[in-house]
Amino acid sequence: MQVRDRNTTDQQQLCINSIRVLAMDAVQKANSGHPGMPMGMAAIAYVLWTHHLRYNPRDPKWPDRDRFVISNGHGSMLLYSLLYLTGFDLSLDDLKQFRQLGSITPGHPEYGLTAGVETTTGPLGQGFSNAVGMAMAEAHLAAEFNQPDHQIVDHYTYVFCGDGDLEEGISHEAASLAGNLRLHKLIYFYDDNHISIEGDTSVTFTDDSGKRFEAYGWHVQYVDGHDIEQIEQAIVAAKAVTDRPHIIVCRTHIGFGSAKTQDTGDAHGKALGADEVIATKHAYGYPSDEPFFVPVETLNEWRKMIDRGEQLQGEWRAKLDAYTVAYPEQAAEFKRRLAGSLPDGWADNLPSFEPGGKDAATRVTSGQVINALAKTLPGFIGGSADLAGSNDTWMKELPAFQHDNYAGRNFHFGVREHNMGGVLNGMAYHGGVRVFGATFLAFYDYMRPPVRLAALSHINPIFVYTHDSIAQGEDGPTHSPVEQMVGLRSVPNLLDIRVADGNETAAAWKIAIEQTKRPTALIFTRQPIPTLQGTKEKAMDGVAHGAYILSDCDGTPDIILMGSGSEVSLIMAAQPKLAEQGVRARVVSFPSWRLFRDQTQEYRDSVLLPNVSARLAVEAASPMGWERWVGDKGGMVAVDRFGASAPVKDVMPAYGFSVENVVATALKLLGKGRDTGDQAQQPTQTASGDNPGRATSGAEGHS
Amino acid sequence: MQVRDRNTTDQQQLCINSIRVLAMDAVQKANSGHPGMPMGMAAIAYVLWTHHLRYNPRDPKWPDRDRFVISNGHGSMLLYSLLYLTGFDLSLDDLKQFRQLGSITPGHPEYGLTAGVETTTGPLGQGFSNAVGMAMAEAHLAAEFNQPDHQIVDHYTYVFCGDGDLEEGISHEAASLAGNLRLHKLIYFYDDNHISIEGDTSVTFTDDSGKRFEAYGWHVQYVDGHDIEQIEQAIVAAKAVTDRPHIIVCRTHIGFGSAKTQDTGDAHGKALGADEVIATKHAYGYPSDEPFFVPVETLNEWRKMIDRGEQLQGEWRAKLDAYTVAYPEQAAEFKRRLAGSLPDGWADNLPSFEPGGKDAATRVTSGQVINALAKTLPGFIGGSADLAGSNDTWMKELPAFQHDNYAGRNFHFGVREHNMGGVLNGMAYHGGVRVFGATFLAFYDYMRPPVRLAALSHINPIFVYTHDSIAQGEDGPTHSPVEQMVGLRSVPNLLDIRVADGNETAAAWKIAIEQTKRPTALIFTRQPIPTLQGTKEKAMDGVAHGAYILSDCDGTPDIILMGSGSEVSLIMAAQPKLAEQGVRARVVSFPSWRLFRDQTQEYRDSVLLPNVSARLAVEAASPMGWERWVGDKGGMVAVDRFGASAPVKDVMPAYGFSVENVVATALKLLGKGRDTGDQAQQPTQTASGDNPGRATSGAEGHS
Repeated sequence: MQVRDRNTTDQQQLCINSIRVLAMDAVQKANSGHPGMPMGMAAIAYVLWTHHLRYNPRDPKWPDRDRFVISNGHGSMLLYSLLYLTGFDLSLDDLKQFRQLGSITPGHPEYGLTAGVETTTGPLGQGFSNAVGMAMAEAHLAAEFNQPDHQIVDHYTYVFCGDGDLEEGISHEAASLAGNLRLHKLIYFYDDNHISIEGDTSVTFTDDSGKRFEAYGWHVQYVDGHDIEQIEQAIVAAKAVTDRPHIIVCRTHIGFGSAKTQDTGDAHGKALGADEVIATKHAYGYPSDEPFFVPVETLNEWRKMIDRGEQLQGEWRAKLDAYTVAYPEQAAEFKRRLAGSLPDGWADNLPSFEPGGKDAATRVTSGQVINALAKTLPGFIGGSADLAGSNDTWMKELPAFQHDNYAGRNFHFGVREHNMGGVLNGMAYHGGVRVFGATFLAFYDYMRPPVRLAALSHINPIFVYTHDSIAQGEDGPTHSPVEQMVGLRSVPNLLDIRVADGNETAAAWKIAIEQTKRPTALIFTRQPIPTLQGTKEKAMDGVAHGAYILSDCDGTPDIILMGSGSEVSLIMAAQPKLAEQGVRARVVSFPSWRLFRDQTQEYRDSVLLPNVSARLAVEAASPMGWERWVGDKGGMVAVDRFGASAPVKDVMPAYGFSVENVVATALKLLGKGRDTGDQAQQPTQTASGDNPGRATSGAEGHS
Repeated sequence: MQVRDRNTTDQQQLCINSIRVLAMDAVQKANSGHPGMPMGMAAIAYVLWTHHLRYNPRDPKWPDRDRFVISNGHGSMLLYSLLYLTGFDLSLDDLKQFRQLGSITPGHPEYGLTAGVETTTGPLGQGFSNAVGMAMAEAHLAAEFNQPDHQIVDHYTYVFCGDGDLEEGISHEAASLAGNLRLHKLIYFYDDNHISIEGDTSVTFTDDSGKRFEAYGWHVQYVDGHDIEQIEQAIVAAKAVTDRPHIIVCRTHIGFGSAKTQDTGDAHGKALGADEVIATKHAYGYPSDEPFFVPVETLNEWRKMIDRGEQLQGEWRAKLDAYTVAYPEQAAEFKRRLAGSLPDGWADNLPSFEPGGKDAATRVTSGQVINALAKTLPGFIGGSADLAGSNDTWMKELPAFQHDNYAGRNFHFGVREHNMGGVLNGMAYHGGVRVFGATFLAFYDYMRPPVRLAALSHINPIFVYTHDSIAQGEDGPTHSPVEQMVGLRSVPNLLDIRVADGNETAAAWKIAIEQTKRPTALIFTRQPIPTLQGTKEKAMDGVAHGAYILSDCDGTPDIILMGSGSEVSLIMAAQPKLAEQGVRARVVSFPSWRLFRDQTQEYRDSVLLPNVSARLAVEAASPMGWERWVGDKGGMVAVDRFGASAPVKDVMPAYGFSVENVVATALKLLGKGRDTGDQAQQPTQTASGDNPGRATSGAEGHS
């Protein structure tokens, strides 16, 4: 009465069961984790990892390897088991450390931590989307570099996903885009086990998923996920259809073989229990009850993947060598791309701007930078979530990336911000390209999960956000960011840069492009703003320091004025007005909290002089966190209610963003202001008086 | 050569064109906005608003009105034109103030600002999701209150949506749930105009949308969106199919009638230009070029909707009267629900907890509160995004809301956090129910847009977030919130409450239920924590004040310890340890920044004594913003890097969350600490030294 998959030899069955056993044992030892998925998808994994997936356990970064994405990342023990069995740099001891502090086997796979993990997954749907990005990067590089008879870029992206991934909205966005782009080297395996945490999926999820994917233009197949012949045939059939992405709907049984939990929610997210683990091993006819036991002949069978991988990679190396002889220039560029290094002179043509010229929105100066980079930086690709004109992200002399031209460098991501983030991450994970994607700053809210995951994974996509404050204006509060800058600044390892003019724009882009270990968010205005005196000389170095003295006074300042973005022009204009009243003000442009936090204390003290406690921050966004920089005696002109629908010329003064109000608030902070009564009507606010000594001038606009 | 719709009489055509003309003129006057959609959907709107939609311009809040949702909210001028034409409280002058400061005609419709606006839309896909919530509320109330021959709840929800809505992932989540629930009183009109901002939709969006909705179990029809007979027939046909939601795919022409812009992206998002407006009016054969002109007989025709509405509402009133006679008790309860008032004794059975008992996770104490409310608060409904067990949100004696039991009060929202937020908002917009929905705090990131919109719209859904810090543990950094509390605290008009034990849990739920004008986020732990000494007496009042003295010292404190959630138990334990060293510490439990900010300065000063500058905040999340409360000389034990996958007993001390480290940091802040060297190894951090006088003890864990 052995429980087994279909059409397997005994040896194959042992290989498959070894995955299950390791997953059960690791979850049991940790008393935490998800055994059901690895038990349900083990047979699929076996066929894929032994017959199709091209990888080299000895070189997990082989550039032309197939990518394997486990979007249902809670099933991480499936992946860790495979990495151990096939001979990656992951030991049985590592499996025993599953979900323990400092291990390389955390609860959900983390990119960069564990060799062979291609993406950080767990938040559902992210891997589903990343994989589309990987396939886009592959298609792009193939279109750029392959030559007749020289296929140096030629790999598939395989994805495991579950009902959770398919329920999440990002799966719709990703599948719709992949279908539109006809990315045929994408093969998904849907773990159709009919079970979610709350029970049978039918309580909330009764989609005809196959039909849904057909509607996206995908190639859909249905198999018994426990029949290795059906799985094999479906993969072969998928590869034969070369004009569509593929999804193979695999009917599986979660917790396969565990009499007590199979096909129940209990198998999903907790240890089976020591007795049930043993009972299940008996049901499999597994040769030992001992935890983490793998028969030596089974391990040897799996470890054949090492030689296979070395051979596959060797064949590719030979192809690359031949290519290098035939196309030496392209080969050099290809190798540069893979290394992620920057070509000589890439930053030589960045535009710079003179003060006194025509005002320009920084989204527009950003567009100029993008178009300069388009010429000097091959592999620089990106686009917008259906706002290319508004975001000013189109590379004017370059074509779009479309199904009939994967060499295009302008991307139509569609009204799909969440997937744009996931796809950018996927392209960054893949490598060989330098990617950006744009939308309005307010819609950062639609794509918070992938931005966070980029930061967690130490990858370097560039997120471009325009219409950066309540100065957005007419579109109103739904489109006016208020708390989004707080959000960007609070994500660990995310680089935030909100620029004050065109020169800071060029500097910000340069810094973003140079990042290798963290994502960057670049924040630009909708409205035209002046080029500031001094940025042409100071911005390139200044922005890199996060905050810098843009305009100083003679002697020790009475007050330090600081701000970011369009509001820097207000404090620059306030400086001479304050001088007229005998007040010495230093103006600090403060484009990036992250970069400023990265500086030495000495540098920070040289900008924000410790002995000057009168400090005023001006930013047309939430005040949260500015307390750190202005201190107890400082003040703020900021926004802690929602924006309003009106032209910028009306919105900004109504919220206190005028030179007059900045001057008045500064004077008040210095104890020189007159209380006109008008002040209290305005949403202008300064830091609250909850701290000893903190100035309480200005009304606080609670909402 | 008059440009006209199909099967219209001249009078009908004038009615339809009056919508278009007002939209063109208002956008032209503002020189901002979106004329193309109103011009394309005017004929559909005419048929719906004159033949089907049941509403009363004189009483926009008539409870049994049909709901009309404009999910493609950028076409707001369509709605404003309809509200003016049909006689709502919106004048021609209001239309002339489109997108101006202080007007009731902002760029995108805002709930609560403009009579007749049912939801705040603009961020795409939100209205699409809200409408599903409205239909769920309608179905629930109908199931609860209707009786044979007494249909007092019987209305449809109609939705306009565009390709942007259909591209957004939330449309997938919403449509999948609506199909599962077979919500047949939902009728969507898809503005299939083939144009998005970046051009033809085919550059990125080639779904077979009809087939996609069939896969969700919807009833799909296709019509010419300019043929009023086809539109009429499709609506009639939709009403006849009573087991599925409906989508009518309407082939339309964006910018209909504008020779220069029809069927182009140019018609989408900007004014047509004065000349083109006039040329288009000529093309329509419209009787005048004058801006905002509506022929008096056309207006009269439209204004017949007032009498129609009064009559429809009158008929309903008669039904309600008959119901009140036949079912007086139910009628009284029904009226209470509609009024949104709370029944007597609703809070009488809230649990309370004694210190010294068994530790309990606040998700579990929350589950006890939910189950208490289930008994005392009819109309209290909610659920989880497939985490009911983990979130502890199931009302144990009540059934699920399913297609065959709309009276159920437990909701399976599915792995669809974004739509859960949209649906909760929709139910709150609808009224008659008191709603909550739950997921992990880390996945607040998946549902930021609807949470923000709830706050902007001044509606009161309750968002429940469990697994509230890095103490989540084994699931690792992907599931460990760090910056999410910052996020919740930074949204204007959102009430945040992170509780310290069971008694604070009960208080928090009570406060949340009592809110009428803002949403609440309730934040609970995964891990068991002790019931604290003093909360049984103080929490009910204390939580309502945002922060309160949980345990004081004799005399003026040397230091104020503050914190929220599970960390309050650490500062409570630190207090006697500090006393042993001669340090007088006050312990402040700080569950809600929003509520504390709402208090008088006097109250705030009584808790955070202005003359005590040694203050230590302890929170297992981002330090951002705590500077406001601890001041320049304060310190923090907080987290500004990502979490780790490990058991809570290992994670928390590794990040500095131990009584020992709290004591050591407090002593250091007071200048009494020994620098052991160990300290610098820990991620413990205090406020940085960027401000004059601010203590710099502790390492700062930049990441």
